[in-house]
Amino acid sequence: MFSHVSRFKVRFGETDAAGIVYYPNYYKWMDQATHDLMFAAGFSTRRLMEEELGVPLIEAQCRFQGPLRFEDEVKLVSAVTEVRNKVFRLSHQFYHGDRLVAEGYEVRAWVSFRGGTLKAQALPQALRDQLLSSPTV
Amino acid sequence: MFSHVSRFKVRFGETDAAGIVYYPNYYKWMDQATHDLMFAAGFSTRRLMEEELGVPLIEAQCRFQGPLRFEDEVKLVSAVTEVRNKVFRLSHQFYHGDRLVAEGYEVRAWVSFRGGTLKAQALPQALRDQLLSSPTV
Amino acid sequence: MFSHVSRFKVRFGETDAAGIVYYPNYYKWMDQATHDLMFAAGFSTRRLMEEELGVPLIEAQCRFQGPLRFEDEVKLVSAVTEVRNKVFRLSHQFYHGDRLVAEGYEVRAWVSFRGGTLKAQALPQALRDQLLSSPTV
Amino acid sequence: MFSHVSRFKVRFGETDAAGIVYYPNYYKWMDQATHDLMFAAGFSTRRLMEEELGVPLIEAQCRFQGPLRFEDEVKLVSAVTEVRNKVFRLSHQFYHGDRLVAEGYEVRAWVSFRGGTLKAQALPQALRDQLLSSPTV
Repeated sequence: MFSHVSRFKVRFGETDAAGIVYYPNYYKWMDQATHDLMFAAGFSTRRLMEEELGVPLIEAQCRFQGPLRFEDEVKLVSAVTEVRNKVFRLSHQFYHGDRLVAEGYEVRAWVSFRGGTLKAQALPQALRDQLLSSPTV
Repeated sequence: MFSHVSRFKVRFGETDAAGIVYYPNYYKWMDQATHDLMFAAGFSTRRLMEEELGVPLIEAQCRFQGPLRFEDEVKLVSAVTEVRNKVFRLSHQFYHGDRLVAEGYEVRAWVSFRGGTLKAQALPQALRDQLLSSPTV
Repeated sequence: MFSHVSRFKVRFGETDAAGIVYYPNYYKWMDQATHDLMFAAGFSTRRLMEEELGVPLIEAQCRFQGPLRFEDEVKLVSAVTEVRNKVFRLSHQFYHGDRLVAEGYEVRAWVSFRGGTLKAQALPQALRDQLLSSPTV
Repeated sequence: MFSHVSRFKVRFGETDAAGIVYYPNYYKWMDQATHDLMFAAGFSTRRLMEEELGVPLIEAQCRFQGPLRFEDEVKLVSAVTEVRNKVFRLSHQFYHGDRLVAEGYEVRAWVSFRGGTLKAQALPQALRDQLLSSPTV
């Protein structure tokens, strides 16, 4: 299924007084990776939002196996793992060098924001096809 | 003029690997204090936003005189210091105990978001009157 | 077992362009609640850090049932649900009024940072006793 | 004097319910740019921290001329503008396409954290020489 690789360096503001990454930042990174994956799949979430559509979270989990520190280089491998009628699931694996330091998942819904209320809908066929495809990279 | 006092404790996630508060958080605190001051003045910024109105930043500055650490108790004294036709200015003073540890200011405009573009407008008279008044507390 | 209730208002900076709370903030709130619970239990995490001790995350999950918006009043009920030799588990339930809008959990380890490496250790008996006790409130 | 150019895309989590960038993020970006400039100048702030040295803020200001939105491409031009005995000053200019959308400055001190207290010191000659040099790029 569709996948995406992100590479970044841990920022100073992402650390805490224990000298390691403050844990909610892993979820921020998963969120960014999903937006990037959607963009790479041809579905800019900015353009979706202009049509009052979005992919909000149903559930997210992360397991932490080793700390990340300021200036560490991180490779984040994100992949679609399941596509259902109104929701889809992604896995996220964080590597520091060859070491897996954390892994998580997100479950997201396809949602209309029209009229100020959130309403889950069936994923459009074009998105479904893309998420189920192999990435061109 | 209208003023507001906020009290809070430094959170773990607001510190960085140097063991002190990550500096952009002072601007987050100034922003929160201004929203609270507006709320206390009878102008909930949530309700303003529902009418596509807001008070975005024109300029903000802060000077740092001593560090703040995790769990430090902070008193933030915020006050309107100038009200012009379309913009107003606030001062923010951060105290740890009796010690002034930082002070800053914000200049904000009264802005309509209608149609997706930001347009500065004259402050409504009721808001102008409130900002120029003494707080009841 | 030990529990703690936090009450707060959603801040402007915690929202995103979809007009609802940006999801990593729920993990920030769970983290803050755990620090507050530890503090209420007599174990200030600031003081622990001064002794190079801490309670870093092993795993965290949250499920989102309804959105939170700017200025919403939130009640967060946090409770210890399991205490093992080196790790403990907490549940976190987010309420907006009477409605459960999200619930999550954290698994945390008791860790020494001495010498720059993280090493899990058996929870001290005094902490174990406190976490297993009913709160006085 | 030494300068550095950063390029990035506005992230979803950097926006707020008004649909534009939440203002404290400009200071986060200035901070990141300064760490990157220091790194490019051969002074990794991570390595400095390992020697209990750092460059904390004395003062920071930013003026906002137009909003930034989710997915906007930003070019941030950062440059040293003054080097004194214990402090130095940097300018930061934010461009969206050709348009200057914000500009700010930071004043930072060269500080030792040894023994848990912050103490400003004279900048080492090697850093002074680098900050006063033209960048090789």
